[in-house]
Amino acid sequence: MKKILLASTSTVYGGTYLSYLKEAMTVFFVNVDEVLFVPYARPSGITHEAYTEVAQSGFEVIGKRIVGLHTFADPAKAIRTAQAIFTGGGNTFLLVKQLYDLGLMDVLREVVLSGTPYMGTSAGSNIAGRTMQTTNDMPIVYPSSFKTLGVVPFNINPHYLDPDPTSKHKGETRETRIKEFLVLNDTPVVGLREGSWLLVEGERISLEGELTARLFEKRKEPYESKEIKF
Amino acid sequence: MKKILLASTSTVYGGTYLSYLKEAMTVFFVNVDEVLFVPYARPSGITHEAYTEVAQSGFEVIGKRIVGLHTFADPAKAIRTAQAIFTGGGNTFLLVKQLYDLGLMDVLREVVLSGTPYMGTSAGSNIAGRTMQTTNDMPIVYPSSFKTLGVVPFNINPHYLDPDPTSKHKGETRETRIKEFLVLNDTPVVGLREGSWLLVEGERISLEGELTARLFEKRKEPYESKEIKF
Repeated sequence: MKKILLASTSTVYGGTYLSYLKEAMTVFFVNVDEVLFVPYARPSGITHEAYTEVAQSGFEVIGKRIVGLHTFADPAKAIRTAQAIFTGGGNTFLLVKQLYDLGLMDVLREVVLSGTPYMGTSAGSNIAGRTMQTTNDMPIVYPSSFKTLGVVPFNINPHYLDPDPTSKHKGETRETRIKEFLVLNDTPVVGLREGSWLLVEGERISLEGELTARLFEKRKEPYESKEIKF
Repeated sequence: MKKILLASTSTVYGGTYLSYLKEAMTVFFVNVDEVLFVPYARPSGITHEAYTEVAQSGFEVIGKRIVGLHTFADPAKAIRTAQAIFTGGGNTFLLVKQLYDLGLMDVLREVVLSGTPYMGTSAGSNIAGRTMQTTNDMPIVYPSSFKTLGVVPFNINPHYLDPDPTSKHKGETRETRIKEFLVLNDTPVVGLREGSWLLVEGERISLEGELTARLFEKRKEPYESKEIKF
């Protein structure tokens, strides 16, 4: 049975790394001692080593050990044998390119579909969707495909941000960008606000946290919902 | 001699489409009657026809006729024989994909390098850089390459936006995103604020408008400048 936790962000305003998710993570990883960490998204370009230390700081609070995927000679085997997997945020293009270049996208999909607990934050949540095409990130590298895990039947826009009615900026709002995506694509999109996360157990998907999500479907006006059902 | 005008945005706060550029455009297009319009970026997903009408509304103010590139059976020939070219903003991925799919990227580069006046706004300016990798847009389609015209020796980030010190949002700032680009790439980046444009005449590049630009180079702290010199 699929067991997936997808958070919009690793850190909320005023909190520390993963602090707002402590209780949810305690339940989610209850039967797990060691979590395999996917550090490839490298936020601010930090190294895999440095990023793994950041992840460790977030997981030691709930008494779990973190091991970095980059430390394995055979990363596919590390994924296949992991008790649980956590993919951190950063740049989605970099994360997806690395997963494809190392031949890991299919392996990761398989283990998540067969029940290895998977947690993602930001870019790590984005790749759980059908494609990475609703990422907010810059295309700093060219991945061989935009197709991602597809372990949920929609796309995710992490760090979803409402338009600022006082803004004088003329760049596109997040809503406009996602609507442009839906002119050319059919996949529905969950705009997941900071402080929200999705919990997937088998085919059951619940939205956790205090806020509603903004849902986008082709040929429909975007709408607010506490339920993720398309 | 290259003759290029690259604007951060088509519209500034409180203005109408291209209104703040009226004088610059009058000078830039002085010897031109008809401008070939590249509508492929389709802002908000509008049609090529509708977008060409928008462009026409902006150019009729300076007494120029607009023709849409999508109306030609042989678009490469239309580019080769154009008096001048204007590429409007929208989604950069869509624009670049369309230019590659129709085999027009090289043709466009050739004519701009040999002196056909070229104006871009937003996505249309972004593609003048070496690559589209500092776009702000969502990857709503998969182009066959991120390489773009390279008619200026740097990349452009249009709609450059300073970090908001009062923000509670934890998504990456524009500056962080561009720094991530420079961890993995060497091409310098011009962060071009709304209301600014670059004017290129041969090898001379000047920054126009009231504001400074934010310049980004590998292994340097970003800095403000009125001169574009790397």
